[in-house]
Amino acid sequence: MAKFMDVHSGFFGTTREQLDQAHGADLKIEAEEGVHFEHAWLDPEQGKVFCLATAPSKEAVLRIHERAGHPTEEIYELSVEV
Amino acid sequence: MAKFMDVHSGFFGTTREQLDQAHGADLKIEAEEGVHFEHAWLDPEQGKVFCLATAPSKEAVLRIHERAGHPTEEIYELSVEV
Repeated sequence: MAKFMDVHSGFFGTTREQLDQAHGADLKIEAEEGVHFEHAWLDPEQGKVFCLATAPSKEAVLRIHERAGHPTEEIYELSVEV
Repeated sequence: MAKFMDVHSGFFGTTREQLDQAHGADLKIEAEEGVHFEHAWLDPEQGKVFCLATAPSKEAVLRIHERAGHPTEEIYELSVEV
């Protein structure tokens, strides 16, 4: 299992409730790909969402986000952590 | 105190040792601005570094990163977390 950060842009003014709903949609199906989203953070002023996940591959993270309705091309494999 | 994610680009091929050194330079002076960097993650293939911090302000995070020699314009205030 590896660790991934994915970044979503354009989420200006998103509320806690909306983030919770989007994150919940991921959590509901994540196990089907062996993914687990540990955190989702939002900066509503700059419209950015960061998700930290453990997963078998970048593609698995992408598939869950796609199926949950919020795909992103920005997925980073965090092979180093300090 | 608020939570912040900052993003550094162009760190292609950076090693664990280099990240550790850069992160160490932040940790050494962070208390002077009331900042604490909790994590630093690196994707050496895509050259991205993500730092998660608690701090009194975005400016405080920036000042520490500037003084440690790795400023960034990408600092996000994570006012929502789920």
